[in-house]
Amino acid sequence: MSFPTPGPKQELEQGLTFTPKFDQYGLIPAIAQDHQTGQVLMLAYMTAEALAKTLELGQAVYYSRSRQELWHKGATSGQYQIVHQILTDCDQDALILRIEQLGGGACHTGANSCFYRAVPLGQTPENSKLTPVSDPD
Amino acid sequence: MSFPTPGPKQELEQGLTFTPKFDQYGLIPAIAQDHQTGQVLMLAYMTAEALAKTLELGQAVYYSRSRQELWHKGATSGQYQIVHQILTDCDQDALILRIEQLGGGACHTGANSCFYRAVPLGQTPENSKLTPVSDPD
Repeated sequence: MSFPTPGPKQELEQGLTFTPKFDQYGLIPAIAQDHQTGQVLMLAYMTAEALAKTLELGQAVYYSRSRQELWHKGATSGQYQIVHQILTDCDQDALILRIEQLGGGACHTGANSCFYRAVPLGQTPENSKLTPVSDPD
Repeated sequence: MSFPTPGPKQELEQGLTFTPKFDQYGLIPAIAQDHQTGQVLMLAYMTAEALAKTLELGQAVYYSRSRQELWHKGATSGQYQIVHQILTDCDQDALILRIEQLGGGACHTGANSCFYRAVPLGQTPENSKLTPVSDPD
């Protein structure tokens, strides 16, 4: 099980062969986005194995960096993510999963999106606060 | 110029102090999303310095991993990104920039979004193709 090796820039950007680029830890970032509202729900990472399983199952399978194991989202929490579409970017080193979120939310805290706090502009690093947001969209 | 050190899990997830977590290269991923349509335009990375400048200017400043330098998006291309809102996630190791894209698009290829190709589901890694998408939203 392996994806083709990324080719030269032109092929990577304009080609129609999927050659995902994994980093030095074998990971690629995947943005989970609600397929209907466009709300960004979370950012997680995939190994080649996780990505292959996601393509096969049509459900999001990530790699847990903290637990260092394959993470079929929802398998223990019920927060399954049904994948409607996967997109890759110009240099094929990032993914978007356009998904339908099951189980009431994407975040383990119970929030719909993991992005439930805003960082107000104009602050300095030494003194920067967060403000809760109910729904970024 | 430095952000506070991340605290314990509870504080990280529920607190209202911004303590962004940078990886071992000093980077944090930032998702640029159109503030009106919700379309995800690109994924890039920031150093603490880039993030501080973004907060100060209200325009996206990233760190270019390939050029290994601060990257004020648009300074050479005109593709400036006016930041309307910044969000951080539960463990504060990822950001969303809700932006207004100037200069006709976010991608250096001329596309509005860098995510202009889809990865059809059900494919095997050995034989996976891409299909162009005109607008993922």
